[in-house]
Amino acid sequence: MLETKHISSAQNTLVKKIVLLRDKSKERKKTGLFILEGKRELELAQQGNYDIKTVLYNEKLVTISTLKDNFNLYNNTILIGVTQEVYDKIAYRNTTEGIVAITKAKSHNLSQLKLKTKNPLILVAEAPEKPGNIGALLRTADAANLDAVLIANPKTDLYNPNIIRSSVGCVFTGTIATGTSSELIGYLKNHEIDIYCAALTASKDYSLINYKKPTAIVVGTENSGLSDIWLEQSTQNIIIPMEGHIDSMNVSVSAAILIFEAKRQRKS
Amino acid sequence: MLETKHISSAQNTLVKKIVLLRDKSKERKKTGLFILEGKRELELAQQGNYDIKTVLYNEKLVTISTLKDNFNLYNNTILIGVTQEVYDKIAYRNTTEGIVAITKAKSHNLSQLKLKTKNPLILVAEAPEKPGNIGALLRTADAANLDAVLIANPKTDLYNPNIIRSSVGCVFTGTIATGTSSELIGYLKNHEIDIYCAALTASKDYSLINYKKPTAIVVGTENSGLSDIWLEQSTQNIIIPMEGHIDSMNVSVSAAILIFEAKRQRKS
Repeated sequence: MLETKHISSAQNTLVKKIVLLRDKSKERKKTGLFILEGKRELELAQQGNYDIKTVLYNEKLVTISTLKDNFNLYNNTILIGVTQEVYDKIAYRNTTEGIVAITKAKSHNLSQLKLKTKNPLILVAEAPEKPGNIGALLRTADAANLDAVLIANPKTDLYNPNIIRSSVGCVFTGTIATGTSSELIGYLKNHEIDIYCAALTASKDYSLINYKKPTAIVVGTENSGLSDIWLEQSTQNIIIPMEGHIDSMNVSVSAAILIFEAKRQRKS
Repeated sequence: MLETKHISSAQNTLVKKIVLLRDKSKERKKTGLFILEGKRELELAQQGNYDIKTVLYNEKLVTISTLKDNFNLYNNTILIGVTQEVYDKIAYRNTTEGIVAITKAKSHNLSQLKLKTKNPLILVAEAPEKPGNIGALLRTADAANLDAVLIANPKTDLYNPNIIRSSVGCVFTGTIATGTSSELIGYLKNHEIDIYCAALTASKDYSLINYKKPTAIVVGTENSGLSDIWLEQSTQNIIIPMEGHIDSMNVSVSAAILIFEAKRQRKS
């Protein structure tokens, strides 16, 4: 029995709370909640076993029966129909999907990380900043069905609307853990996972490495690369040879080249 | 003998013309000129033998001797010192580099295309729309030192400021040609270049193809993929197997995976 309500005023307290959750990382951390938007995002959050607290739907675009028929909502999920005016206030994208949900954040504690396979392939990103890059990394990790994405010293919380958007919802289905660089290195070494760090200062061509054993591919930021702790503790530092006029690639592009080379080797 | 001038009014006619060139594709097409911004971009445009008509520099940030010492400017390039107010009006990025230049566009006519090698590796993008994606493709093409990037039915002119920015200047150094899809297919077939089209509907795993012969890798838009003319005329349609919850990758990420697999094979 889903509880249903209606909001028609953009001044409503819940509306204001949603705007805060959407825009303020601090509010998300304080409450343990975040905002998602879109049909696919809601579906993927359900696949990822997220606890959907409240679904707000634009009454002009979505009917309550569409919601009930298309989404596997729990009995304790509250459904709230809202007017166009309210929807415009809470939505962050310019879409006609008409669905916004208040959702409970998950813990991404390293201690709770469970790898899918015994021969894991893992992506590690150190201190990524741009939400678009983080989203793109998560999207590639999804396509490659990686065992996990580990984020060292995160600068942005994972439920930033721009990460959700650019990951096209993969932030909900991926296995993600965060920690300090030392914690993550400790974890990888304890689990006997080889660490390959992408660095412009490296000399070993990435394509000459054997990635068939348990493997973590580590990428840094575009501006400053990886910190010394990674470069010193790695199994091997590797480089994608650059033959052009500039000496860097987008971090999500580099990561994809490395991940799919590992995938190729593992298939062959 | 470089001619030097000074502009202190944001109402100046040239200032208004620069803003038009920066913001309006139509103005760029009409005049055959475009605006670039930044030191690296100016350097790369010079490496690409672009004709730099006028360099405007923020007098607060750049001295005329810096310009003369660091850039190989032609004698007919006009140098114009501008005030902070004027610079704020003409710049499109939030940087402190203080350099904007009016530059002559190049023709990207297919008939003038010269490939660098006899065993070319080429990227073709059909009707790419987002400047960020086009820039990322050009950046990857630079890193891989591709023979050429061909753009079929371009939707955006190459001198859009967001393409210049996201390509980090690679738009100036790359070998780029544009044309209709039929023209490009005709060109590739005439030159006996194999055509491999990336398509989600394909069944052949991209990593099972031999890319050692003259090769063109063809990618479509994220939304609609490649049009039938490409899929029907290709040597082989190929797929990067997707093993996740969503069934697409960013087009620049897909292109990079395919290009670097071809590079890997050609090295080995």
